[in-house]
Amino acid sequence: MNILIKNTQLLTMEDEEIKTANIYIEDDKISYIGSREDFKSDRVIDGKNFLTMPGFVNAHTHVAMTLFRNYGPETDLMTWLNDYIWPLEDKLKAEDVYYGSKLALLEMIKAGTTSFADMYFFCEETAKACKEMNIRSQISRGLAIPDHGFSKIKENIDLANKYREDKLIDIGLGPHAVYTSDLDYLKKISDYAQEYKLPIHIHLSETKKENEDCYKNYKMSPTELFDKAGIFKNRTIAAHGVYLSDNDLDIIKENNVSVVHNPSSNLKLSSGFLDLARLIDKGINVCLGTDSASSNNKLSILREMEVSMLVSKLYSSRPISYIEMLQMATVNGAKALGFDKVGMIKESYKADLIMIDINNENHTPHNDILSSLCFSTYESDIKNVIIGGNIVYRDGKFNNDDSENIILKTKRQFEDLKAR
Amino acid sequence: MNILIKNTQLLTMEDEEIKTANIYIEDDKISYIGSREDFKSDRVIDGKNFLTMPGFVNAHTHVAMTLFRNYGPETDLMTWLNDYIWPLEDKLKAEDVYYGSKLALLEMIKAGTTSFADMYFFCEETAKACKEMNIRSQISRGLAIPDHGFSKIKENIDLANKYREDKLIDIGLGPHAVYTSDLDYLKKISDYAQEYKLPIHIHLSETKKENEDCYKNYKMSPTELFDKAGIFKNRTIAAHGVYLSDNDLDIIKENNVSVVHNPSSNLKLSSGFLDLARLIDKGINVCLGTDSASSNNKLSILREMEVSMLVSKLYSSRPISYIEMLQMATVNGAKALGFDKVGMIKESYKADLIMIDINNENHTPHNDILSSLCFSTYESDIKNVIIGGNIVYRDGKFNNDDSENIILKTKRQFEDLKAR
Repeated sequence: MNILIKNTQLLTMEDEEIKTANIYIEDDKISYIGSREDFKSDRVIDGKNFLTMPGFVNAHTHVAMTLFRNYGPETDLMTWLNDYIWPLEDKLKAEDVYYGSKLALLEMIKAGTTSFADMYFFCEETAKACKEMNIRSQISRGLAIPDHGFSKIKENIDLANKYREDKLIDIGLGPHAVYTSDLDYLKKISDYAQEYKLPIHIHLSETKKENEDCYKNYKMSPTELFDKAGIFKNRTIAAHGVYLSDNDLDIIKENNVSVVHNPSSNLKLSSGFLDLARLIDKGINVCLGTDSASSNNKLSILREMEVSMLVSKLYSSRPISYIEMLQMATVNGAKALGFDKVGMIKESYKADLIMIDINNENHTPHNDILSSLCFSTYESDIKNVIIGGNIVYRDGKFNNDDSENIILKTKRQFEDLKAR
Repeated sequence: MNILIKNTQLLTMEDEEIKTANIYIEDDKISYIGSREDFKSDRVIDGKNFLTMPGFVNAHTHVAMTLFRNYGPETDLMTWLNDYIWPLEDKLKAEDVYYGSKLALLEMIKAGTTSFADMYFFCEETAKACKEMNIRSQISRGLAIPDHGFSKIKENIDLANKYREDKLIDIGLGPHAVYTSDLDYLKKISDYAQEYKLPIHIHLSETKKENEDCYKNYKMSPTELFDKAGIFKNRTIAAHGVYLSDNDLDIIKENNVSVVHNPSSNLKLSSGFLDLARLIDKGINVCLGTDSASSNNKLSILREMEVSMLVSKLYSSRPISYIEMLQMATVNGAKALGFDKVGMIKESYKADLIMIDINNENHTPHNDILSSLCFSTYESDIKNVIIGGNIVYRDGKFNNDDSENIILKTKRQFEDLKAR
């Protein structure tokens, strides 16, 4: 389908200028940006009231964990995992993950997310949900010991082979964290990643305790352990990174590891807060994630932007600028996930974009659009979402909206899971 | 008009139970809560998919300052006031305030605010906007020296006399802050407040600098200065309170002063962050405010709840519970403002309530509704807003929606203001 977006305010993320332009989309790509409008189009979208920008990239989440949204009391990471999440995850079935994923994608697309990185189990179900909802993703199977006969790793590799040619789904390897691995297991995963040329998705230095235990067991930091295992020879996204030493940052920088900042989740689980500027000023690629809905409890990159900017006023070595935050939410995320030609609005780039109503009360007056995007945007201002040239959300509505059914099924699935 | 809300999930805020009930509203009051449904009603609202709760109270804002939304760079309070806000405010006209107020009320009502406390200039314009939009408010004229012939105070008193019998508008006196007053001026205001039985609205210990300067000038804290002037003999709401000594807290507690926590604004202006639990555990009435849109840049109590709960994980002496946060957003705010029978859903109470769609993707599954309200609610989930028995927002729409006109006029007004 060819789409012409006419006369929109445009933030390409190549720079921080707001321009007025027409955008022509052919199939899955942006083929023209400028003042011409003599295109053959199947759809014309009037962009007059909108700011069009690249869709958000959620670089760390576990979509199916919407099942556990608001489940259990507010507590720290390890209590939460040990006493509430892991006992239920032990009983998970494929269908739980399918509905949990679909439910998450409804919320994520409405909130302007056009691609994301996921780590979980029953990944085929998440991939199926992504195909049905037409959203771009990098999916990794969570890998943790014990892994008898390396069946988890093999499942992950099989998945990679299955989706190798897929336009929307990428597969990565997901060594969960140092506290659920050992050095040999990490080395094994790194070898497979090299052999199959797969990216890596890890949790890294999320809590003080993780670091302390790692020093106790290995006399080194989680970053040093992953490095020693060769994990960083592969393109890696590292979620959290709340507690990183200067030496850790050197390793991360040298190996082009991307760090995913999850402000809401880190605060909610009392883990701490990342000093963003310290990483940015070192030239490290930093992006944003929601983590799962069960430690957040939303799936909105706009919310992460707000929280991150506000809290960085106190917790970061300097405030974060609007454009830095918008980069984290878009182009840096795409770079982290290794998506080719995603994250900017540019000729030949994939047509992953969102259209935000900036002509409403909360964006008035237009004193500074970048500030308005960071601080004044409600998720419901996002009216159109296009992913790979497909209009997946239009005028604030899904095509063939199946929400009611998904909501009902997810509720039933979770009741069934608890009763198992 | 009589309204029957049938079969809704209900959080009364008398306790933290979620019940199922019918609510019958006669004129401006709730007259029945229970299982009966044999009422004569002009309107019946199906409550099946909704959680009905008291509307939010925004206990500190300057609504007309939507004009300055996203205006000027991110900086600290005094630079922001001196270099950006005050020069424009010097040129303000009545019509600016009227449109700025109307614009704010659109956003606030959509986000579930049913009453608020405002401090600004041209208060009649704000009052007019409130009457037109049918929202409850306590409005104070910002009082600062120089005040030749006490004309500002007199304007404030005239306003109070004009609205004394009004059902929706209360008037308070607004001594802005210690750094814009002196002891004699504060004493004068206190005397007037006693004479006319008016409540007080102040800024208090927002920044470290405010405290330091006050010690320099008066050898006492802002709280001690207000106390010495007799201000606290009157019912007082004190915005911010970021830097309060133990002695300050004793004074505040003893005088039943309510403290308004403005988390987003305090973070955005790098002012600091209030240790909420310290105040709550002392038995001080704490509520929530957005401050103005120009230091926020939204007007959403839901957002303040989220930010406050998340940041309190690190900044408060203990985490804040869901119910404590919901109390701050509703009943504590109503108490602070001295509104009679507001802030709970209870027979004989004023019908100020909101209906939140909890049957959508982001509230699924229903593991814990209180947690869901605090962490998973988008402003657009608020579908119905009733204030004083009037349905001001229904099915996500305003009656006789004038938004487009207000938006346009506010834009023009601000362009005109800058050019003056």
